[in-house]
Amino acid sequence: MHYLPGESHRLPGNRTSLAAYQASHFQYQVQDRVATITLNRPERKNPLTFDSYAELRELFRALAYADDVKAIVISGAGENFCSGGDVHEIIGPLTKLDMPGLLAFTRMTGELVKAMRACPQPIVAAVDGVCAGAGAILALSSDIRYGTARSRTAFLFTRVGLAGCDMGACALLPRVIGQGRAAELLYTGRAMKGEEAERWGFFNRLCEPQDLLAEAQAFAATLANGPTFAHGMTKKMLQQEWNMGVDEAIEAEAQAQAICMATNDFHRAYHAFVAKDQPRFEGD
Amino acid sequence: MHYLPGESHRLPGNRTSLAAYQASHFQYQVQDRVATITLNRPERKNPLTFDSYAELRELFRALAYADDVKAIVISGAGENFCSGGDVHEIIGPLTKLDMPGLLAFTRMTGELVKAMRACPQPIVAAVDGVCAGAGAILALSSDIRYGTARSRTAFLFTRVGLAGCDMGACALLPRVIGQGRAAELLYTGRAMKGEEAERWGFFNRLCEPQDLLAEAQAFAATLANGPTFAHGMTKKMLQQEWNMGVDEAIEAEAQAQAICMATNDFHRAYHAFVAKDQPRFEGD
Amino acid sequence: MHYLPGESHRLPGNRTSLAAYQASHFQYQVQDRVATITLNRPERKNPLTFDSYAELRELFRALAYADDVKAIVISGAGENFCSGGDVHEIIGPLTKLDMPGLLAFTRMTGELVKAMRACPQPIVAAVDGVCAGAGAILALSSDIRYGTARSRTAFLFTRVGLAGCDMGACALLPRVIGQGRAAELLYTGRAMKGEEAERWGFFNRLCEPQDLLAEAQAFAATLANGPTFAHGMTKKMLQQEWNMGVDEAIEAEAQAQAICMATNDFHRAYHAFVAKDQPRFEGD
Repeated sequence: MHYLPGESHRLPGNRTSLAAYQASHFQYQVQDRVATITLNRPERKNPLTFDSYAELRELFRALAYADDVKAIVISGAGENFCSGGDVHEIIGPLTKLDMPGLLAFTRMTGELVKAMRACPQPIVAAVDGVCAGAGAILALSSDIRYGTARSRTAFLFTRVGLAGCDMGACALLPRVIGQGRAAELLYTGRAMKGEEAERWGFFNRLCEPQDLLAEAQAFAATLANGPTFAHGMTKKMLQQEWNMGVDEAIEAEAQAQAICMATNDFHRAYHAFVAKDQPRFEGD
Repeated sequence: MHYLPGESHRLPGNRTSLAAYQASHFQYQVQDRVATITLNRPERKNPLTFDSYAELRELFRALAYADDVKAIVISGAGENFCSGGDVHEIIGPLTKLDMPGLLAFTRMTGELVKAMRACPQPIVAAVDGVCAGAGAILALSSDIRYGTARSRTAFLFTRVGLAGCDMGACALLPRVIGQGRAAELLYTGRAMKGEEAERWGFFNRLCEPQDLLAEAQAFAATLANGPTFAHGMTKKMLQQEWNMGVDEAIEAEAQAQAICMATNDFHRAYHAFVAKDQPRFEGD
Repeated sequence: MHYLPGESHRLPGNRTSLAAYQASHFQYQVQDRVATITLNRPERKNPLTFDSYAELRELFRALAYADDVKAIVISGAGENFCSGGDVHEIIGPLTKLDMPGLLAFTRMTGELVKAMRACPQPIVAAVDGVCAGAGAILALSSDIRYGTARSRTAFLFTRVGLAGCDMGACALLPRVIGQGRAAELLYTGRAMKGEEAERWGFFNRLCEPQDLLAEAQAFAATLANGPTFAHGMTKKMLQQEWNMGVDEAIEAEAQAQAICMATNDFHRAYHAFVAKDQPRFEGD
């Protein structure tokens, strides 16, 4: 785990601290158990590079074991979210690769999405300005998306001669905004405007640009203060039931919820209710 | 079949009459072959109890064989739909159960959803006021939902420290309102307002509170007067094709529709059309 | 291949020309590599017949190999899209068939949808006026739908005593407009109005009637001028990932996109970008 922090230490049960992780290829900070990842090359609208891809993937994999991060915000510096794979640093080198090299690249980018879907923390994307290509996939792979009216989300793979099927887009996008709208965006690469994105269910909410990050962080904090073990189960089951039949999904949820009923969070919430108190959740 | 009515009698082909069924734990009445189930503890906003869960499950299972009920309306008394599992009668006892007991409970609630999806009658939920927890699942498990602007639907499992994956919610809700909006509701437990629910496709229609039940019943009556054998096939295939590939679904529908083409309803409809008459459907 | 044109000739790699195909049971013309199919019995609102079903199916199958058609528009003559299976020419004969005959018919209609989903060209439906029964399925089976405010789309199988599960409707429609709205349309057969259809994501855009066909053709032309090999891969993967798990879909896309990265279109687009030129796509 090349990118993984020396400063984290192992806790019992294979758990790791990631509150003090020092990121190399983006900004990372944890406050109130909410990790904020900020893509930070604003002069280029925060493109992804081979290095930032790899560090993001390793970080999300490590977050699966982190004990002190309970929700994640992903954002971009300087009024843009992310312009996607850098043309000079990624697209150019790709044109020189052989087929095993190409597949290694597309699998690597896909592994980032897999890691984002596999970590138990809900991920909130805070999307302003340009949200394009692999950047649009980062937003799509998040659990919740806050946007701005001026944001422009474009799955623009087609503009460089590629297919819309990148990093899971043909699976994920139709389930978020519907098959017909997803097809149009994936075939054309056109920008989805902020209000359209909210109307279609891509954005959960539109915020004023100056409030976007704070609102996303505040929302993430409410999740981090909730029953985080249960939230992780919700996220797991949303993924797990993706292509189950309804009856099988119901049985899967019976098992998953029975596990949650054995947690202290559930017991404490019941007793708080009886005592007319606020429940206190600790994720155990 | 503990709850099943002595007054029903077996018809040929294993068919049962449920027009005169006397319910113990909710109101039940049949008019024009539409059964209306009314959850009826209005002073507590119609919570579910172990008893009402069990009777609902047995009733929906029995409805699969009922010959004289062709559509179902589910509603709540006194300006609320259903407040979900009663905190004192259900949540409290759950905190004392061992793991096999917990799983027995979550499977039991899931069996109710399975029975609602398996009976051939279309189910119309008429949702006013509070629609929360397992109550929200009852609405979600229905085929059609009529609501009111003032209704508030909340998947509030998370508020008692549980996960959003309850009774199939992580499978059903994303397909109704989209993956992103479903994730927000399931993580937060926040109330979805009536107009939001209509805009997102959760409610098929908003009604004035005083007209809600009558409009839901009138709609159910039009279904009950239609080709009910075919409606049962539509419901079955919506369930059956949930996680099929497109080509397999097309073959499944070729078989299902060929069966419907062998019915008298189809033949009568054709001859009525030729004679410029109204078709008369009898569900055979 | 009864319906296939003598005038087409085989190209290397099993590719076929379909630019000069002469259709027997509808209008067909190709301009700028966009084929426009126009159902053309306007006095009856363009019903489908056994003959037009069969020719459409064979044509879409052949289009899978066509080298000179890169996008398809499907439309109807005279201010209506398509009224579905002709009552006299199709419904009547169906009432006289035995079960193997019925299944042969429902499979035949399903094969048309399979062929539409299997050909690599994006299909744009241009929907005005009546769009009913199998006509609604033709629109639903297209990739993109342009409509008019006055159009009325009805899955009206139920009106002749049949089920909503026809030609894949119970699989396709819920993914386009959501499970609850689809259920209502399939149970009732009621007409979905143009504005409703746009709001729900069935139509990608509403056009003025007099502009509809030209706008659909212009949109198709932009697709035909794009990276058509990649577009075919996008279409294939939208189909292929229909019922995959998310992780499996991501791996499938890693492979599919790696293939696209080996195309000349991708390489040309990169070099055009570096040279600040417009990319030129040739579908190779």
